[in-house]
Amino acid sequence: MNIQPILTNKHLYPYLLKARYGIEKESQRVTKSGELVTTDYPKKLGNRSVHPYIQTDFAETQMELVTPITNSVPELFRWLAAIHDTVYRSMNPQEMLWPMSMPPALPKAEEDIVIAKLDNFEDVLYRRYLAKSYGRRKQMVSGIHFNFEFDDEMVRKMFELQDEYMNYYQFKTDIYLKVTRNYLHYRWLTTYFFGASPLSGPRYFNGHEHPEEPVRSIRNSQYGYKNHEDVKVTYRSIEEYVADIQQMVEEGKLSEEKEFYASVRLRGGKSVADLANKPVRYIELRNIDLDPYQPYGISEEEVEFLHIFMLFLLWTDEGADADDWVEQGEQLNNLIALESPLAQTACYDEAQRLLVEMRGFVEQTNLAVSTEIFDHLEEMLNDPAKTLAGRIYLESQKKSQKELAVQQGLSYYEKAWQAPYQLAGFTNMELSTQILMFDAIQKAVQVEVLDEQDQFLKLTVQKHNEYVKNGNMTSKDTYITPLIMENKTVTKKILQRAGFRVPQGKEFADKKTASLSYEEFRDKGIVVKPKSTNYGLGITVFKEGASEEEYIQAIDTALKEDDAVLVEEFLPGTEYRFFVVGDQVKAILLRVPANVTGDGKHTIKELVDQKNDDPLRGENHRTPLEKIQLGQSEQLVLREQGYKLESVPNKDETIYLRDNSNVSTGGDSIDMTGAFTDDYKKVAVKVAQALGATICGIDMIVTDINLPAKASNVYGIIEANFNPMMHMHCYPYEGKGRRLTMDILKLLYPDFVK
Amino acid sequence: MNIQPILTNKHLYPYLLKARYGIEKESQRVTKSGELVTTDYPKKLGNRSVHPYIQTDFAETQMELVTPITNSVPELFRWLAAIHDTVYRSMNPQEMLWPMSMPPALPKAEEDIVIAKLDNFEDVLYRRYLAKSYGRRKQMVSGIHFNFEFDDEMVRKMFELQDEYMNYYQFKTDIYLKVTRNYLHYRWLTTYFFGASPLSGPRYFNGHEHPEEPVRSIRNSQYGYKNHEDVKVTYRSIEEYVADIQQMVEEGKLSEEKEFYASVRLRGGKSVADLANKPVRYIELRNIDLDPYQPYGISEEEVEFLHIFMLFLLWTDEGADADDWVEQGEQLNNLIALESPLAQTACYDEAQRLLVEMRGFVEQTNLAVSTEIFDHLEEMLNDPAKTLAGRIYLESQKKSQKELAVQQGLSYYEKAWQAPYQLAGFTNMELSTQILMFDAIQKAVQVEVLDEQDQFLKLTVQKHNEYVKNGNMTSKDTYITPLIMENKTVTKKILQRAGFRVPQGKEFADKKTASLSYEEFRDKGIVVKPKSTNYGLGITVFKEGASEEEYIQAIDTALKEDDAVLVEEFLPGTEYRFFVVGDQVKAILLRVPANVTGDGKHTIKELVDQKNDDPLRGENHRTPLEKIQLGQSEQLVLREQGYKLESVPNKDETIYLRDNSNVSTGGDSIDMTGAFTDDYKKVAVKVAQALGATICGIDMIVTDINLPAKASNVYGIIEANFNPMMHMHCYPYEGKGRRLTMDILKLLYPDFVK
Repeated sequence: MNIQPILTNKHLYPYLLKARYGIEKESQRVTKSGELVTTDYPKKLGNRSVHPYIQTDFAETQMELVTPITNSVPELFRWLAAIHDTVYRSMNPQEMLWPMSMPPALPKAEEDIVIAKLDNFEDVLYRRYLAKSYGRRKQMVSGIHFNFEFDDEMVRKMFELQDEYMNYYQFKTDIYLKVTRNYLHYRWLTTYFFGASPLSGPRYFNGHEHPEEPVRSIRNSQYGYKNHEDVKVTYRSIEEYVADIQQMVEEGKLSEEKEFYASVRLRGGKSVADLANKPVRYIELRNIDLDPYQPYGISEEEVEFLHIFMLFLLWTDEGADADDWVEQGEQLNNLIALESPLAQTACYDEAQRLLVEMRGFVEQTNLAVSTEIFDHLEEMLNDPAKTLAGRIYLESQKKSQKELAVQQGLSYYEKAWQAPYQLAGFTNMELSTQILMFDAIQKAVQVEVLDEQDQFLKLTVQKHNEYVKNGNMTSKDTYITPLIMENKTVTKKILQRAGFRVPQGKEFADKKTASLSYEEFRDKGIVVKPKSTNYGLGITVFKEGASEEEYIQAIDTALKEDDAVLVEEFLPGTEYRFFVVGDQVKAILLRVPANVTGDGKHTIKELVDQKNDDPLRGENHRTPLEKIQLGQSEQLVLREQGYKLESVPNKDETIYLRDNSNVSTGGDSIDMTGAFTDDYKKVAVKVAQALGATICGIDMIVTDINLPAKASNVYGIIEANFNPMMHMHCYPYEGKGRRLTMDILKLLYPDFVK
Repeated sequence: MNIQPILTNKHLYPYLLKARYGIEKESQRVTKSGELVTTDYPKKLGNRSVHPYIQTDFAETQMELVTPITNSVPELFRWLAAIHDTVYRSMNPQEMLWPMSMPPALPKAEEDIVIAKLDNFEDVLYRRYLAKSYGRRKQMVSGIHFNFEFDDEMVRKMFELQDEYMNYYQFKTDIYLKVTRNYLHYRWLTTYFFGASPLSGPRYFNGHEHPEEPVRSIRNSQYGYKNHEDVKVTYRSIEEYVADIQQMVEEGKLSEEKEFYASVRLRGGKSVADLANKPVRYIELRNIDLDPYQPYGISEEEVEFLHIFMLFLLWTDEGADADDWVEQGEQLNNLIALESPLAQTACYDEAQRLLVEMRGFVEQTNLAVSTEIFDHLEEMLNDPAKTLAGRIYLESQKKSQKELAVQQGLSYYEKAWQAPYQLAGFTNMELSTQILMFDAIQKAVQVEVLDEQDQFLKLTVQKHNEYVKNGNMTSKDTYITPLIMENKTVTKKILQRAGFRVPQGKEFADKKTASLSYEEFRDKGIVVKPKSTNYGLGITVFKEGASEEEYIQAIDTALKEDDAVLVEEFLPGTEYRFFVVGDQVKAILLRVPANVTGDGKHTIKELVDQKNDDPLRGENHRTPLEKIQLGQSEQLVLREQGYKLESVPNKDETIYLRDNSNVSTGGDSIDMTGAFTDDYKKVAVKVAQALGATICGIDMIVTDINLPAKASNVYGIIEANFNPMMHMHCYPYEGKGRRLTMDILKLLYPDFVK
């Protein structure tokens, strides 16, 4: 098949740079000073026997981070970031991840390398076999497995454009077989550029046969973790490949299929045998060393290179004899792996040729890739000190490889703990959704972002799917309940009939009718508000009653925000937000209007700036608190109290900048969950039940939290919220955080999330 | 207690004209020619043993229509209208309601008056007893029971303003007792103005003692349906009242409490004995004759008069001896009832005095009532021919009383059948909600409008409440399902993974990214649309593919409607709306874009006007179909086909005025439920299930409805709707109506609504 005209066909153009990627990345857990830990797999993580993201490799200390299948490089890195963040903050805070392929100093006694304590006994047995067959020390090396799948549409279009194959499955498999053979032949190129294991650590070889260090990649050389010499497999055809592996297993040369540690694995079904009936779906590149300069062990550039490389390997011709071709690659790769990292490579000319050809390929196929990537590759080719192995070796000479690893590891550790409320990779989503995703990833619940803008997630445990929007909208509430809460008149009618005290009041659709009713409200404390309030806009409060003029002005103000206005009795007391999940109050929050406390020196404006400096304060619900604004509303509130932005408040004097206490307008959140007796919590739960709600926020006015809720008129229900903020409870300004996101997960998966 | 300063206190002012009202109205079922029917209680109506709105009185032919308790006169009349509409359209279409208190011609044999066939045997026994004790003929008279309750706040304020009573319950009871005594004394005034039974029909008296007709009110005279002479009860105090009634029952003078047929009943608990512990809550005026000139038997004016009258009776002094005072009233009322309807009343001066006092009372209490009502009363006082009895008698002289009754009855009958899709009283609400309310009232499901603007209903059967918005949003769907459907990207992802064919496509947030993807859509049929579409705005369809320029223009158009744009493959075929309820497809509709069919004579504009004349076409979802507009969109579509509004299409030529087929833009609805095989219905149900939906509208493209749905590519899912219109299925332009509203009720109350 003449593949080059096919790949340059314009119909293929939109699909060449599309692909699916997935990464599995191993890392040793170490202390912050770089010693291998002796602790178990972190308890906070969900069941590792089914964990989609966080597994254990050979040893109990060896974390394996697994991304889902992703459709773009940025998406891949979002997931790497999120899973790393979750792993870091689920481990003992004194532990971090070792950023290198070669392990830290290993224990003196081989038995002190603890095999992963997995539940499934077969898994343990397999590791015991490996320990015996290869030795525990060899198993402690870490790397990246890179899963790559061409865009399906691309392969289909290619199939349509050729006439040699009648069978699509066979065509697809042969595409991947060609790439595999070529990869095995040319992979020395990745070893040269990205090999990153120049030096071994203490007791890795422990007296066994070892190379003369430094090299480019111990892990990719004959001294790496490889199958025994007698394991040989052909890549001539899929049938022969399958047969060879099966024979190795039958002859006992491999304990099972998965012991076949080639640099590339062909992946289709669950077992190799499935490839007899199903096409190859993707390939797994297993020879990638951890890049210690990257927080997630690999750079976007390296992934982009691998993608172009895959396309190039499909495009470029291969040797006539498959086995020879692969065997040549094997030799070349070992040669390059064992070169000194600072030496010019023996394959310099060949590498040069390949880079030129690759550039040509990119041009001919109109690939929208930057030339910088090739510039960088050429730079590394001409100056070995700029390759990964070169850089690591040079820096290890200045300090030690351990120091380099600890320095890099610590910087990634610190990054993960810097804003512990965020989830790296998804910081553009609302904070509640980030926290929920963190908890889901931690607890082995599969997460998919169905719509980022819309904060729409799909969660999966086994085959049980749940859809969640904004972190709090789920299948556990009914359609009608939020519609009830959205309509304040309906909510009040229902609560009143259920026997709860709600502010008495009336609804008006125009100013005239409202004016006629003034007499009813004369001499009463009242609140005038739009029927559908939003963040406190258009609300006027008259604690002591309003004059007719004031009343009508307040009606006007409210009518600017909505078609209908509510005039309600004012209930005196303090407002608390009760967060109900199921039949329990999980958190109670006092919200204090945006404020600053004077020090006798700074102006209000300066005090606001100081308070806003807190990293917990941000904008648009991406941080636990919002920055205090200095807009019209705030300045009006100040003016009414006789202040300007330039006023200097007395020491310890508290100045309020808003009338409303919403956290979204810069208010402070103070956790009060522990301060309330059960009777108020029961009231909140019953209110939720009267509205049919499972997850909701009840705003309750309480006269005095020390009075029993049974007495009449000690509380009143102001509002019920169907999209209550969660992050302000999780990370309050003062008091204990309440992990409501975990409560939501427990509600959705009561048997799974503990 | 000096009550007059209390009632004029300004604090009472807002409450005097507030009250709660309820009406029970009896009517005989007759044929359209005015003969008493021989048919049973209408089968379409729900179980009458628990029916909140539609009961049977003494006879099987005697409907009793019961309004809920209402808080205003307009609300009272809305319910009267709605219940009448429901009763009319639930009866045999050959039957109507007799609009007079005096029954139509009665059967020759008394036994042919059929006692109501109630399920509860005690109810039947009671009616048998009445038949024996009073005769069946007497029981056939009909009237209105008017339940009246002062505003509770008014009574509380009055209590606060006095210092004679310490006990609120006693105070409240005495308020009602005073009104009752005064009503019994002065009720002759209502008999004079509103008495409406001047003549008896054939065989009502049937040889028994009878008055000399015409009179003002047979029903209110000694010849009406009254307790036997030996039944006497005092109204001096509540204790004595209760004791008297109990004694009558003990002595056998009354078979049970409810046989006590006073013109006023004091109502508190379930039985009279409850009044010993509970205050009187309201009073029931039982002496109101049916006004044949009013579709619901009583005018708003009469209700308003009764309200003012109640206040006046509370205000005005009473006689020193309670029993004498009531007895005088008894005599006076009989006297007035038996006067000739055209004669000046013997109590002319006293009536004049009372009207003057009432006007004075209204002035002193600042009551916002029109003086017209008093003008009209004075007119009736001075000219007896203008009283109800006078008018009926005069008109009966010209024709016959029967002819008058049939004429009035038929006009109400016709009104009820004029727009059978509407529910009188609630025509300002969306049609789907009107239809659902009709079905609920019919099937004995209690309905409350919680918010009219918002189409928010509360339904109740026994203690089981359900809340419904827009007729189709219920507790049977979950919160997340409509959120999924609202987001087309999320919907498509879920459906695609569940194995359904959905249009392939991509989402873009800006023009530039969309432009870059043009290559992917080149040469393909595509649809470009805003991510959240509304009534087809911003959609462009390219059935044969678009040029790059057209494509970018379409992106622009869609971006005007939303922040994000979907470009999707165009699926050829016809779009059908499948309405799913639970696990069944209840209706399938073909929607045809707004169109007219030429006759070779009229212009397009004229044809549109003709089509819009159909009463089924209206605006804003208040009719089954919408009027065709002649706006920019329609004119553009015409222009593209080479037409103007003035063009005259050929005979039988169909001209389309819209690209989209929405009924809301004037499209035609054609029921196709019967035309589809089960396999397509199964697909729609499975789509709903994949989205977790119970009630939804699935838009499916079908290539050919005769091809089995199993074949690939014969259908595609375009959209799922979480607020699907129901009324277009209930009353389609062509084909059979599907009562989806009844399906909703069955879903909510599976054991009750059959």
